[in-house]
Amino acid sequence: MANKIDEIDMKIIKLLSQNARMTYKELADKLKTTRQRISRRMNKLEKLGVIQKYTAIPNYEKLGYTYLILGITLRAGSDVDEIIEKLQNIECVKIIQKAIGSHNLVVHIIAPHDMKRIQDIINEISKAIPGIDHMDITFITETTKIEFF
Amino acid sequence: MANKIDEIDMKIIKLLSQNARMTYKELADKLKTTRQRISRRMNKLEKLGVIQKYTAIPNYEKLGYTYLILGITLRAGSDVDEIIEKLQNIECVKIIQKAIGSHNLVVHIIAPHDMKRIQDIINEISKAIPGIDHMDITFITETTKIEFF
Repeated sequence: MANKIDEIDMKIIKLLSQNARMTYKELADKLKTTRQRISRRMNKLEKLGVIQKYTAIPNYEKLGYTYLILGITLRAGSDVDEIIEKLQNIECVKIIQKAIGSHNLVVHIIAPHDMKRIQDIINEISKAIPGIDHMDITFITETTKIEFF
Repeated sequence: MANKIDEIDMKIIKLLSQNARMTYKELADKLKTTRQRISRRMNKLEKLGVIQKYTAIPNYEKLGYTYLILGITLRAGSDVDEIIEKLQNIECVKIIQKAIGSHNLVVHIIAPHDMKRIQDIINEISKAIPGIDHMDITFITETTKIEFF
C-alpha cells in the first residue's frame, strides 16, 4: 500500500489534516499543480481508505459535553471482535480502537456533563464486555495540541 | 458558553463532524437556510473555539505509520503544564490531553513503523517528564468506529 502513495499524496494528506476545508484550488496553488490533478489524487486516497474521514473536531468542554477514554484490558482468550460489535451501536461510544499493549481495546465516549449518566454508560459498557480484566477510566479536561498527521 | 449555541449550531457541528468538506450550499440545503446564514454561523463557531479544527483522518496503518497512545500517571504535585510545554514541540507527538482519572496526561504519537525509533521516542518523552508514576503504552492496530460528535 505505502508504495502506491507518493510524496505529493503525503503533502495533500498533511495539508488536509491541517485544514480539511481547503479547496481544490488552494491545494493546487500550494502544490503548484492543477485542481483536476488534486481532485484525482484525493479520490484515489479516499478510495484506498488512506483518508478515512474529513471531520470537524469540536471543543467538547465548550459544548457542555464530557470526553472520556476507557482503556480496557481483556482476559486472555476474549473475543475482541464480538465485543466491538456490541459496542458499535452505543450512541455515545464515538471511537473504538483495537490495540495491543497495556490495553486491548480503547473506547472514546462523548456524553453530556452528568456524572450519574456517565456512570450508567460505563456500567452498560462493562456489562456488554465479558472478560474485562482491568479498565482505566480517564476524563479528558483539555486538549493542548491536536494534529492528525 | 453552551447557551450561545442553539440547535441549528449543533446540527451544523454534527454535519461537519460527518463530513468537514460539505459546502455552504450543501449545509444550507440540508438545514433549509441560506449559504450566508451557514457561513455566519460557522464563523461564529470557529471564533468561539467551539469548532477547534477541520481535519482529515488518515489510516496510519495504510501509510506505514504506527499510532500509539501513552497514558501517563504523574506523582502528586507534578507540574503538568510545564511537562506539556516540553512535549509540545516533539514532532511525532500529535495530540496532548490533560486529564483526570487513571491518567493525568494522554499523549498520542504517530511515528514510522520502526520499533527501535519508537523506543527512542518513548525514552525521549520519559526523560522530558519528571515525576512519572506509571505509563501505559497502547499500540492502536485498527479503528473500527470513528466519529467526533
